[in-house]
Amino acid sequence: MAAKKAIAVVAGVGPGTGSSIARKFAQKYPVVVLARNPANYTEVVDTINAAGGQAIGLSTDVSDPSAVSSAFQKITTELFPGSPIAAAIFNSGGGFVRKPFLELTTEEFQTGWESQVRGAFLFSQAVLPLLLKGVEEKSEHPPSLIFTGATASVRGSALFSAFASAKFGLRALSQSLAREFGPKGVHVAHVIVDGVIDIARTKGYVFEHEDAKISPDAIADSYWFLHTQPRTTFAYELDLRPYVEKW
Amino acid sequence: MAAKKAIAVVAGVGPGTGSSIARKFAQKYPVVVLARNPANYTEVVDTINAAGGQAIGLSTDVSDPSAVSSAFQKITTELFPGSPIAAAIFNSGGGFVRKPFLELTTEEFQTGWESQVRGAFLFSQAVLPLLLKGVEEKSEHPPSLIFTGATASVRGSALFSAFASAKFGLRALSQSLAREFGPKGVHVAHVIVDGVIDIARTKGYVFEHEDAKISPDAIADSYWFLHTQPRTTFAYELDLRPYVEKW
Amino acid sequence: MAAKKAIAVVAGVGPGTGSSIARKFAQKYPVVVLARNPANYTEVVDTINAAGGQAIGLSTDVSDPSAVSSAFQKITTELFPGSPIAAAIFNSGGGFVRKPFLELTTEEFQTGWESQVRGAFLFSQAVLPLLLKGVEEKSEHPPSLIFTGATASVRGSALFSAFASAKFGLRALSQSLAREFGPKGVHVAHVIVDGVIDIARTKGYVFEHEDAKISPDAIADSYWFLHTQPRTTFAYELDLRPYVEKW
Amino acid sequence: MAAKKAIAVVAGVGPGTGSSIARKFAQKYPVVVLARNPANYTEVVDTINAAGGQAIGLSTDVSDPSAVSSAFQKITTELFPGSPIAAAIFNSGGGFVRKPFLELTTEEFQTGWESQVRGAFLFSQAVLPLLLKGVEEKSEHPPSLIFTGATASVRGSALFSAFASAKFGLRALSQSLAREFGPKGVHVAHVIVDGVIDIARTKGYVFEHEDAKISPDAIADSYWFLHTQPRTTFAYELDLRPYVEKW
Repeated sequence: MAAKKAIAVVAGVGPGTGSSIARKFAQKYPVVVLARNPANYTEVVDTINAAGGQAIGLSTDVSDPSAVSSAFQKITTELFPGSPIAAAIFNSGGGFVRKPFLELTTEEFQTGWESQVRGAFLFSQAVLPLLLKGVEEKSEHPPSLIFTGATASVRGSALFSAFASAKFGLRALSQSLAREFGPKGVHVAHVIVDGVIDIARTKGYVFEHEDAKISPDAIADSYWFLHTQPRTTFAYELDLRPYVEKW
Repeated sequence: MAAKKAIAVVAGVGPGTGSSIARKFAQKYPVVVLARNPANYTEVVDTINAAGGQAIGLSTDVSDPSAVSSAFQKITTELFPGSPIAAAIFNSGGGFVRKPFLELTTEEFQTGWESQVRGAFLFSQAVLPLLLKGVEEKSEHPPSLIFTGATASVRGSALFSAFASAKFGLRALSQSLAREFGPKGVHVAHVIVDGVIDIARTKGYVFEHEDAKISPDAIADSYWFLHTQPRTTFAYELDLRPYVEKW
Repeated sequence: MAAKKAIAVVAGVGPGTGSSIARKFAQKYPVVVLARNPANYTEVVDTINAAGGQAIGLSTDVSDPSAVSSAFQKITTELFPGSPIAAAIFNSGGGFVRKPFLELTTEEFQTGWESQVRGAFLFSQAVLPLLLKGVEEKSEHPPSLIFTGATASVRGSALFSAFASAKFGLRALSQSLAREFGPKGVHVAHVIVDGVIDIARTKGYVFEHEDAKISPDAIADSYWFLHTQPRTTFAYELDLRPYVEKW
Repeated sequence: MAAKKAIAVVAGVGPGTGSSIARKFAQKYPVVVLARNPANYTEVVDTINAAGGQAIGLSTDVSDPSAVSSAFQKITTELFPGSPIAAAIFNSGGGFVRKPFLELTTEEFQTGWESQVRGAFLFSQAVLPLLLKGVEEKSEHPPSLIFTGATASVRGSALFSAFASAKFGLRALSQSLAREFGPKGVHVAHVIVDGVIDIARTKGYVFEHEDAKISPDAIADSYWFLHTQPRTTFAYELDLRPYVEKW
C-alpha cells in the first residue's frame, strides 16, 4: 500500500499568524487547524479550500487533555488515517495577562500555563508519534514541530509574571524536545516573535515609522523556511522583529 | 507601639539547602519553615531552638492555595502578628522527573509546574505584602525574596521537559517580580544551583575529585550575602557550582 | 541615469561556507569575494562565471585597514562604480586556536581579534555606506549585513579563550550594528554555526550517524532567507546545527 | 622556610570601584594596585598604609605587554618574592567610547579591545601562575581571579560597538578561564556592574529616586564574598544594579 500523504497541523489559529501559517503550509500539505472557537478558523479554512487546497478546522481547546485526545482521534481514524505529520505548529495565543502581581488571581496566573505549556505538552505528545512516522517514511523535508514564542519567552518584565512564566516554560519544553527528538530526525524549533503583529486587532496601533508591525505572512515564510531545512542544518531558534523595534 | 521583630520564612525545607538556609537566617531572625512533610523540618526546627534561636515548622503544601493561605493566616494572626518579613526564601524541590517525553503522564508534567511555579506564585503573593511592610518600617537590610533555581532553569535538556519548563517558569516569575518590586525596595533574587548538593541522599554519589558536591551551608551563605546587600547594589542572579563541574 | 545594479560582497571565502554563499548570492547579484589567498576563491569565481554569473575575487586581508581600503576603492571606482550593496557577508575563518591559556602567545591571542573583530569593523565601515545607498534606492530586498558566528560566539570553553573572545566580540559588534542600522533599513544578522561543516578539510571526521556535518549549501540558503526577509520581519540571530549535535 | 604571605593585586584603580576593592582586600592582604596614572592610586595607597595596611602602587599600562611584564617582575623579585596571589582583580575602565559607528576611527575601536581584552589577557597570564601557587600552598580561601564587566558585557547597544565588543570579549575570556582553571582550584568570576557607579565623576548625575547609584563599597563587598566562597560552591557570574535600575 502506498504511504499516505503527510499533513500539517496548526494549533492556535486566529486572524493573524496562525492563519498565515495555515495558508502557507496548505500550499503543500492538507492542513488541520485547531482553535477553541470555530469563528477563528472558518475564514482561513474556506479560503484554503476555495483556492484548491485542503483544510479542516476542529474546535479544540488545546489546554484540555480530552479535547486534544478527541481531535487527534478524529484526525488519525477518520480524517487522515495512516498519514504522518509533516509539520506541527503550536501557536497558542492564550493566557496573556498584564497586571500588577498582587492583583492577579490564581486562575489568571494558571491560565497562562494551561494555554501555553500544558497545551504544548498535550499537542506535542499527540503529534510526535506522527512526526516520527514521517521520519520512518522518509518524508521530503524533516518532520517539523515549531513553537511560537514572544518577547516574554526570554524576558520576565514587570507585570508579565503570568505570561512570561508560561512562555519561558514553553521555551524550555521546546528545547528539551529539540534535544530529545532532533537526533531522531524531527526538527523542533522555537520562534520568538518580538513586536506587534500586523492584524485586524492592531490596526489602530500607530507607530512613528511605517512598516513597524510584523507581517504574519513573513512569519509564515520563516516557519516554512525552518520546515524545509535539511537535517544537516537545523536552526533551533529564530527571533523576528520589525526593523524599528527597540530590543 | 514598637515595631514587631521581622521574621524569615523558608518554603521547601528538607535535609539540605532549606535547612542550611533556615539555620543561617535564624542567627538573626525568628524563622518559619514550611514543608509538606513535618519530618522534613523537625530536625532543623529543634536544632535552631536548642541553639537559642526561634524556629517554627508549619506543615504546608506550597502548591495548594488553601494550605498557603492557612499557613500565612497562622503566621500573621497567631505566631507573629504585626511582624514584617525580612527574608522569604522559596526553595521547593518538588516536581523533579527525568523521563522520555512520550512516557510522561499529564499529571507528572503538571506536578513540576504546581510545585515550582504555582507554589512560588502563591508564596510570593503571601509574602510580598509583608516584605513591603518591612520596607515601610525601614528594615535593617532590604527585605529579600529569593528563589532557588537549578541547571534546568536555563537549559531544557533532553528528558527534562517537565522540570525544565517548571524551572524556566520560576525564573521568569522571579525576573518579573524583581522588576516590579525592586523599585519598591524589595530585593528579589534567583540563585542557580548547578551541580549535586552534598546531602544525605547524595552521600553515595562518588566523584573523581574531592569537594565535587555543593555545600548547602555555602549556598546559605550566598543567600545571606544577597539579603545583606544594600539597595544601591542588588544582585539579581547568582550561579553556584563546584569547582570541577562541567558547564 | 538608471540606478546601478546592486552587488553582493563576501569576505572570507574558502572551500566551504564562503563559496556556497557566493554561489547562492551570485544567482541574483554580481559577487565580489575577498580572501587573503587567491587560491581560496579562484575555484568559486570560475564556477560562477562559467555558469553565467558574475564574480570577481580580490586578494584582501580583511584585518588590514589599508587592504580593505584598497579593495573597496577598487570596487567603488573601477569594478562597480555607483552600485549599492545588496548583501555583505562577513565570514572570516581566521584566528582559530585551541590551546592551554598559559601557552598562548600575545600574538596568537591577538590574531583572533584582528581576524574576527577588527576585520568585521573594517568591513562594516566599508560596506555600510553602500548598504544605506541600497536603502535609499529602494532595493528589492532590504540590504543585508550578515556575520558568521560559531559555538564560541556564545560559550567561552576551556582552551578557547582567544577564539571565543574574538567571536563574542564579533557578536557584540553585530548586535550594536543591528540596533543602529536596523532602523535605517539595513538588515544586520548573526548566524551561529554550531557544529562541524562538511568540507574537504573535514572529510576525515567520522561520526556515528550519517548527515552529522553541516551542509555549507544549507548555510547559504539560510543567509539567503535572511536576506529576503522584509523589513517588517527581520530575524537577528539564527543558530544552525546538525540534528545529532549535542548542545 | 615558611610560606610567604599571599597578596592581592588590583588592576585598574581609579577613584571608584578599584579603590574600594583595594581597601577591602587590604583588610586581609598586602595589596598591589596597578594603574597607568599614579594620580589614580596615590590616595588609596596612602589611605591603606595610614590605616595600618600595606599597599603599593605601580604605574602600569595593563594593555602594554612590556609594562605588565615589568610590573610583575618587580612584584615577584623585589616587592613580594615567593608570595602567592590570593586575589587578582581586573577592573580596567579603559576604552569606553559612545559614537555612531561610521564616525569611529580604527584606533578608537581598537583601544577598547586593548584596554579590556588584551589587558585582561596579559594580566591573567601574569597572575595565574601565582594563583596556582596559592592553590598548591593551600591558601585559606581559593585563589580568585575576578573580572569587572558592565551592561555592555551582555548587550551590544547602538553606538556601543567598540566598548561592547571589548566587554563581550572580556566575558568570553573569563568564561574560558573559569572552565580551564576552576578545576585546578582557582575561582574565576565575572561581575556585571549594570548602572551608574556613585563616584566623584557622577556626583552631578541626578536621579528621580535616592540611592539610584551603585555603591563602590558594596561592589567591593561582592568581590570579597566571591573570594571567600569555598571551592565546593563557586559563583561564576553576578549582576549588580541599583534597585531602581531598568533592565
